[in-house]
Amino acid sequence: MTDDLSAALATPALQAELMATAHALADAARVATLRHFRTAGLAADTKRDDHFDPVTAADREAETAMREILARRRPEDGILGEEHGTQAGTSGLTWVLDPIDGTRAYISGCPSWGVLIGLDAGAGPVMGIVDQPWTGERFIGGFGAARLERGGAATPLAVRPCANLGSATLFTTFPEVGTPAERAGFEAVRDRVRLTRYGLDCYAYALVALGQVDLVIEAGLQAYDVQGPIAVIEAAGGIVTNWQGGPAHMGGRVLAAGDARVHAAALERLSRA
Amino acid sequence: MTDDLSAALATPALQAELMATAHALADAARVATLRHFRTAGLAADTKRDDHFDPVTAADREAETAMREILARRRPEDGILGEEHGTQAGTSGLTWVLDPIDGTRAYISGCPSWGVLIGLDAGAGPVMGIVDQPWTGERFIGGFGAARLERGGAATPLAVRPCANLGSATLFTTFPEVGTPAERAGFEAVRDRVRLTRYGLDCYAYALVALGQVDLVIEAGLQAYDVQGPIAVIEAAGGIVTNWQGGPAHMGGRVLAAGDARVHAAALERLSRA
Repeated sequence: MTDDLSAALATPALQAELMATAHALADAARVATLRHFRTAGLAADTKRDDHFDPVTAADREAETAMREILARRRPEDGILGEEHGTQAGTSGLTWVLDPIDGTRAYISGCPSWGVLIGLDAGAGPVMGIVDQPWTGERFIGGFGAARLERGGAATPLAVRPCANLGSATLFTTFPEVGTPAERAGFEAVRDRVRLTRYGLDCYAYALVALGQVDLVIEAGLQAYDVQGPIAVIEAAGGIVTNWQGGPAHMGGRVLAAGDARVHAAALERLSRA
Repeated sequence: MTDDLSAALATPALQAELMATAHALADAARVATLRHFRTAGLAADTKRDDHFDPVTAADREAETAMREILARRRPEDGILGEEHGTQAGTSGLTWVLDPIDGTRAYISGCPSWGVLIGLDAGAGPVMGIVDQPWTGERFIGGFGAARLERGGAATPLAVRPCANLGSATLFTTFPEVGTPAERAGFEAVRDRVRLTRYGLDCYAYALVALGQVDLVIEAGLQAYDVQGPIAVIEAAGGIVTNWQGGPAHMGGRVLAAGDARVHAAALERLSRA
């Protein structure tokens, strides 16, 4: 990040504009994703001869709506989106967008999918949103904000203390996790925690920020899978790294924790994988 | 069921009274369960010296509230509840109550737990509710009703067609499922389906009734874990049995399906377990 960009990002005016833009993106994605959620067409997606795929349609409509907003409000910023690829910018800021994280949950009618928005200033997100349109929960982190907004009410987000693996609740999406080596790493942690749960996609990261869950371990992620969650968890006081303790904002193997102590304990086991 | 009870259950007046009672029970359980959901005390439940367990407190408060309603409105009916045991009745009707199905989801802040209410007339439920207080979704089945109520709106519930395992979406709560033999039975089905997902507790049954999911396989259940879901799924056109194709309303090994064809295909594999 240049000194100029760093100084600009410290100004309340730019922060407010960027935060308002992020909310506008999430609002637009809510409309597009809810339009298709739990529709009959989704159930039939693999059976149609014309290969119309309504999941992809929802994904694309949501990302297109978000890109239209950015073209109008922030034309100088870059965009990295799951569906429509990369668009270079000139400002040093890049919007990292996943219109539907958790498409398998989405096509199963399960509200653990989410809209992920991260704002990368070059070395990771400075602000982000995890939005769950069906439950109406919007988790926001960055520029001093760490809150859950729902139905007009806002509550602060804060991770909870967790001293060791033996008192930790751990989430991942698939029991298989990734490669055999990655699965072994995950299981080395899983075997020591108090409770392991599966299947939540990005919603698990939101629960870390909410102080309800202590650890999330995933592998094989893309930048757009993690930048929104990283911003929210860090703003709530948590920590997100790769399995070696390095930056996670480009994806890959991800370890998210609410408490640095349980993060270190999990890292010690994962780093051998 | 006696002929007299059968005739009485066919009258609109009794049906309306029983349905209204079920809604009153679900309303009361919503208040009690939401009072404790995502509170800080829940996170600390294993760390307190006085052994106060707020999960149990939420469970008990919800069941107590439901029992008070039944004592007032339906004193002649029996009650089978998870927390406070069995109370015999004289009417031939028994309310089967699980105030919080999915306590591990509940203590993790994840809204896949639910309040389960079934009305057993002797050979299984004639009516039931699966309620998710946080999302505000109430799934209702019985006496000609099969609907999802949320925020004042009602939508019909109907299972979706699914001809074979290869096009099925399967849910269970834990990858381990139960005993090694039960796990082997589950995996024999899992290996043939299109998509397997984990972790939803009773919410998975609701998704079958909603036509979003095709199969749920569980083991080691109690009557109060299944009677509400059975009523809702059957009213939506689905089928719930044990792994031998017999009645499932007393719990044990449960197979729920939206389509009789995929139920038969799963049963053929499970019955060898």
